[in-house]
Amino acid sequence: MRATVLVRPKPGILDPQGEAVLGSLRQLGFAVEDARIGRVVDLELANGGREQARAELERMCEQLLANPLIESYEIELVGEA
Amino acid sequence: MRATVLVRPKPGILDPQGEAVLGSLRQLGFAVEDARIGRVVDLELANGGREQARAELERMCEQLLANPLIESYEIELVGEA
Repeated sequence: MRATVLVRPKPGILDPQGEAVLGSLRQLGFAVEDARIGRVVDLELANGGREQARAELERMCEQLLANPLIESYEIELVGEA
Repeated sequence: MRATVLVRPKPGILDPQGEAVLGSLRQLGFAVEDARIGRVVDLELANGGREQARAELERMCEQLLANPLIESYEIELVGEA
């Protein structure tokens, strides 16, 4: 089963990478008001079962993929049911 | 108008960050077959108009947000029509 996890800096948390991109986009002439940068993690899971997959993904996020103090995460299951 | 851009390493392109995450997830006991890491860029655009926004986002990706040689990008418009 395939899954996509989006990890983003929480609102209010400093995002230097986003600020750098915002500055660069403006310098290039783009009318951008805000930019925030996070990570997208595409995973291929060995075990089937949506329920089990979602539970495992939550644990992966809490333990490794995200820093729950400063980042939020969003899990999307892509593969078969 | 808000937009989300997903930037991913193209298939076949080496992804050391993904390999590191894959190794760490396995060490933690998760049954994962593959992991690839990309970026998620959340943008707030000053100008309205979906057509114009999409065209601008394409240019942002080509010029700054992605390296078209080794990365693919996916644009999602979130805001009002």
